[in-house]
Amino acid sequence: MANKKEFAIIVAGGSGTRMGSDLPKQFLDLGGEPILFRTIRAFHNYSTDVSIILALPEQWQEHWQSLVDRDQFEVSHQVVNGGQTRTESVINALAKVPNDVLVAIHDGVRPLVSRDMIANSFQIAEEYGTAVATMPVKETIRMIEGESSKTLPRDQLQTIQTPQTFKSELIKEAYAKIDSGEFTDDASVAEDAGVNIKLFPGSYRNIKITTAEDLATANALI
Amino acid sequence: MANKKEFAIIVAGGSGTRMGSDLPKQFLDLGGEPILFRTIRAFHNYSTDVSIILALPEQWQEHWQSLVDRDQFEVSHQVVNGGQTRTESVINALAKVPNDVLVAIHDGVRPLVSRDMIANSFQIAEEYGTAVATMPVKETIRMIEGESSKTLPRDQLQTIQTPQTFKSELIKEAYAKIDSGEFTDDASVAEDAGVNIKLFPGSYRNIKITTAEDLATANALI
Repeated sequence: MANKKEFAIIVAGGSGTRMGSDLPKQFLDLGGEPILFRTIRAFHNYSTDVSIILALPEQWQEHWQSLVDRDQFEVSHQVVNGGQTRTESVINALAKVPNDVLVAIHDGVRPLVSRDMIANSFQIAEEYGTAVATMPVKETIRMIEGESSKTLPRDQLQTIQTPQTFKSELIKEAYAKIDSGEFTDDASVAEDAGVNIKLFPGSYRNIKITTAEDLATANALI
Repeated sequence: MANKKEFAIIVAGGSGTRMGSDLPKQFLDLGGEPILFRTIRAFHNYSTDVSIILALPEQWQEHWQSLVDRDQFEVSHQVVNGGQTRTESVINALAKVPNDVLVAIHDGVRPLVSRDMIANSFQIAEEYGTAVATMPVKETIRMIEGESSKTLPRDQLQTIQTPQTFKSELIKEAYAKIDSGEFTDDASVAEDAGVNIKLFPGSYRNIKITTAEDLATANALI
């Protein structure tokens, strides 16, 4: 089915706040195991041939290894150092990805991504070069402009999810062109480099766990 | 504390899909009672002096009355007919609201609104004429433009919640000026009439229950 070798970069950049006293979200328990186990396993369950690269802040790698050892986590993966920013983390991970492969970049705190969504992202990226999971925005969004704000046209808005999957040389070139600024996702980096982004349907189930409410949702969904 | 008489319009417009075969979300059970009971009670708990108006599609009013009777729902409220659209529902309800009062317009499927948030909304509307609950957008949002799309600047985006509270004559005049188009919230209607909107912090807990995932979250949060 897949023509090209497939890679997955799992971005687990959270380094905790207040000098590491808080456990980053990716290590929190979800149904008896760390969130990050589930996220990595989602890609392994899609295909055991996917090469998995985990970008993790250096100060949390020992903790991670202790979790892997404790639970005998079964999915093989390579760990690279996370950076100060998401962008730096992705750059570090992309350095391990060869040209002429497909690479899915995925948030470490999105453990509920489905096998179908991963499969779709690789297939679409194979055809179009890019594949970015999105869903329609459900709420009204306002754009703040100085002291005032205005409603945006909801039917034109999409919430961006991950995976965001690319032909590897395309996304590597896009990241190589960055000289400043911070980007909240990879599609924005590619776009900044002049690439047209192909969107495909994600799922409301594919939540990003960033708050206590999100964790409660994830617990209810699994 | 409050200078003006306070009203609350609860918009419970959902009429189910496929010819009413599905129960609209506002009637679904949340912790042992219909979502709508909790939403209405939130305003009653803030102040027993708030006059509550429920906008409900005519075909669901008998069902609603049966729930009220069955559970002896204790909060007095007035029911008006919901319209084909949210806009029509609000117009029908506003017809029951006098001038020179404050009116909070609130989604029937936001049962987790706090007493403090309701209090803030009335106080701010008393001072500024408008008070709209918002929270920073957590995910990356893209705007679709024809065949392409572009990332929006996340630090300028706010997710709009309810309550949206207004001096009654201001919002009645704004709705009176509408001649076409559909609006997803009341702030957009006021804005269309030239009113500057005052935003205040909502809460991520104040979720809008529109999917099964949302209901799972709400169940986890209560």
